[in-house]
Amino acid sequence: MTPSSNTPLSASQVPALSKQLAESLQHKIDRKTKPPGSLGRLEDLAIQLGQIQDSLTPEIRSPAMLVFAGDHGATAAGISPYPKEVTAQMVHNFLNGGAAINVFARQNRLKLVVVDAGVDADFADAIITKIEDAHRVDDSANPNRVIDAKIRRGTRNFVDEDALSPEDLTLCFEHGARIVQTLADAGTNAVGFGEMGIGNTSAASLLQAVLTQRDLAACVGRGTGHTDEGLRHKLDVLTRALERFSNDLKNNPTVDLSPAMQRAAINTNTDAAGKLAFRALQAFGGLEIAMMTGAMIEAAANRMLLVVDGYITTAAVMAAIAIEPAVRDYCVFSHVSGEQGHRAMLDSLAARPLLDLDMRLGEGTGAALAFSVVQGAANFLNEMASFEDAGVSDREDET
Amino acid sequence: MTPSSNTPLSASQVPALSKQLAESLQHKIDRKTKPPGSLGRLEDLAIQLGQIQDSLTPEIRSPAMLVFAGDHGATAAGISPYPKEVTAQMVHNFLNGGAAINVFARQNRLKLVVVDAGVDADFADAIITKIEDAHRVDDSANPNRVIDAKIRRGTRNFVDEDALSPEDLTLCFEHGARIVQTLADAGTNAVGFGEMGIGNTSAASLLQAVLTQRDLAACVGRGTGHTDEGLRHKLDVLTRALERFSNDLKNNPTVDLSPAMQRAAINTNTDAAGKLAFRALQAFGGLEIAMMTGAMIEAAANRMLLVVDGYITTAAVMAAIAIEPAVRDYCVFSHVSGEQGHRAMLDSLAARPLLDLDMRLGEGTGAALAFSVVQGAANFLNEMASFEDAGVSDREDET
Repeated sequence: MTPSSNTPLSASQVPALSKQLAESLQHKIDRKTKPPGSLGRLEDLAIQLGQIQDSLTPEIRSPAMLVFAGDHGATAAGISPYPKEVTAQMVHNFLNGGAAINVFARQNRLKLVVVDAGVDADFADAIITKIEDAHRVDDSANPNRVIDAKIRRGTRNFVDEDALSPEDLTLCFEHGARIVQTLADAGTNAVGFGEMGIGNTSAASLLQAVLTQRDLAACVGRGTGHTDEGLRHKLDVLTRALERFSNDLKNNPTVDLSPAMQRAAINTNTDAAGKLAFRALQAFGGLEIAMMTGAMIEAAANRMLLVVDGYITTAAVMAAIAIEPAVRDYCVFSHVSGEQGHRAMLDSLAARPLLDLDMRLGEGTGAALAFSVVQGAANFLNEMASFEDAGVSDREDET
Repeated sequence: MTPSSNTPLSASQVPALSKQLAESLQHKIDRKTKPPGSLGRLEDLAIQLGQIQDSLTPEIRSPAMLVFAGDHGATAAGISPYPKEVTAQMVHNFLNGGAAINVFARQNRLKLVVVDAGVDADFADAIITKIEDAHRVDDSANPNRVIDAKIRRGTRNFVDEDALSPEDLTLCFEHGARIVQTLADAGTNAVGFGEMGIGNTSAASLLQAVLTQRDLAACVGRGTGHTDEGLRHKLDVLTRALERFSNDLKNNPTVDLSPAMQRAAINTNTDAAGKLAFRALQAFGGLEIAMMTGAMIEAAANRMLLVVDGYITTAAVMAAIAIEPAVRDYCVFSHVSGEQGHRAMLDSLAARPLLDLDMRLGEGTGAALAFSVVQGAANFLNEMASFEDAGVSDREDET
């Protein structure tokens, strides 16, 4: 794959949602055979979905789960209790249909698109699939296709140097956008996001510390299951990475964006927060997180619903929203993870998650489960009878 | 229908769950390709489901939603902002497929069984179906069948007298049990519970006040949407009903159970709490609540999973658990309702609901939505690969 820095990013085109349509949707909901407001957050979801699709009869069409995988150079510093080989092993597991995300994607009839953003392995047994064919996955149970968007075999170790070069980061955004565009062209209008990458809670914690100005120790959790000692070591390593970043920022306060990133930044009127997000993504990665960020902006630009998974996926969307605030309106936050830091990260986005099931598995599992709630919102809006249709009496006047 | 007070209730037969099997299920879960514990409450659900079915490979088979409908004599006292005719109108809506419960039952492929426990109307356009044919519903979209378990056309006004006679209450338990037995015989092993009855938040509040010794004002909420004035009036009415009950209890402290109830009470070793539950059900009703209570005990006796809906359904299961504490282990609490009092009622049962979506619609809508989470628990247990199957490395030793 060659860098294509002349391809414009479409981040500028995230449309604002119509407030007038929201009122029409609320009116439609209030005529349904139920007490006003009694479907609670499903009503908010139905309104959001209608606004996103600019329709009084929104529908979830060909929903997809996009799972981005990548390795992290910093695993060499012992930030995870699992060996880094598990990233590739779990991608194999996705392709063979044996992982949790396969189960939940199948249950909710989601197209499962597994993307190799930068795994340190090849997938010789799988059907290596071009980005333009990302929509061709036809079996969540056993997709056997991996989308080849590999930029490099894992990030550089963020303790010593930037995880990504400017060119890497640009490619992440471009590949992410192209994958989403392919799905949009094939009719998908709702995308769940998930990830796999041993070590990626560390990158997410560093992004949180930088983008929300929160104390690093409050952002660092046990990830896949650290002991107390493992957690202390992880915090030590991340503290050094954050110091390196802060020193770099002090020495060079202007953010040096690549040409494509510069265009994106200008197109989206990216302010200081957006530029900081670009720089933090470059400093810490991972390839899968940055590619998700690009994919999310493109999804919103295509008026898709974004179903956000747990801690790492929320870090990616936090970066996307820093770059393009209008992305926020397209997001549904599926669940609050057991990972320390996730609740605060959601709060920083004024996001209230749909599910609270103590899950902390990643892969997009929370997003896949939450699709059934989103589907419920679309279904009641389209299928329930109105008071008039059903001949049901509305409330009596209580004055 | 004739009373059949010689039919023994099967409440005595609720089996205790195996702790040893729970350990085997936990072991099976810990070999799945995921960090230990990372599926959070889905893991607890999978263990509970395995214990209930006494199996390492539990499956949800022919799941059903049972929606019990009944009218309340106390609506004459103005306890609801909706006219009581809405109970029958909404049952018609269920039969025609236009209500929220139709939408969510269809989405989750649940058999929707609508039971007339005591609606003050006939359903001439519907297929009036005998209790023994309750399993014959074959279309959630438009079931068009109503199960005829009508005991009387609404309860008596609980302000002035007991809502149910001892014979009414016995019939409620018997009909509820027979409906569930019919479903069990047809292969159903998971049942969601829901209800429809204008005025039934009032009966539920009174049950809560009596069974949990909570101040009545803290148990009374806005129901389908009272104004402040409507809420004050509702509390006044319910205060009078509770005074009548308390005076009755003072004058006649021994609970006078019908012959069938006496057998149930003896069979289940019903203590003071259980007898108080019988007496409170008789005092306040409703027909749909008492019939649900009987159905729930029978469902647990048949090793079915019970998926409990909101405030009124939880009041019914609270009574069932007071009568037969072993029922508790068979329950999944689907959601916490927006109705004041529900959170405290769940706390009194040490119940943590799966969903918190500000819903307060009833009908079983929360239970129907939560079925997808329960299904997810069964699916991951049965379908995910183990570390050994998938060739994925487990954690490194961190000592």
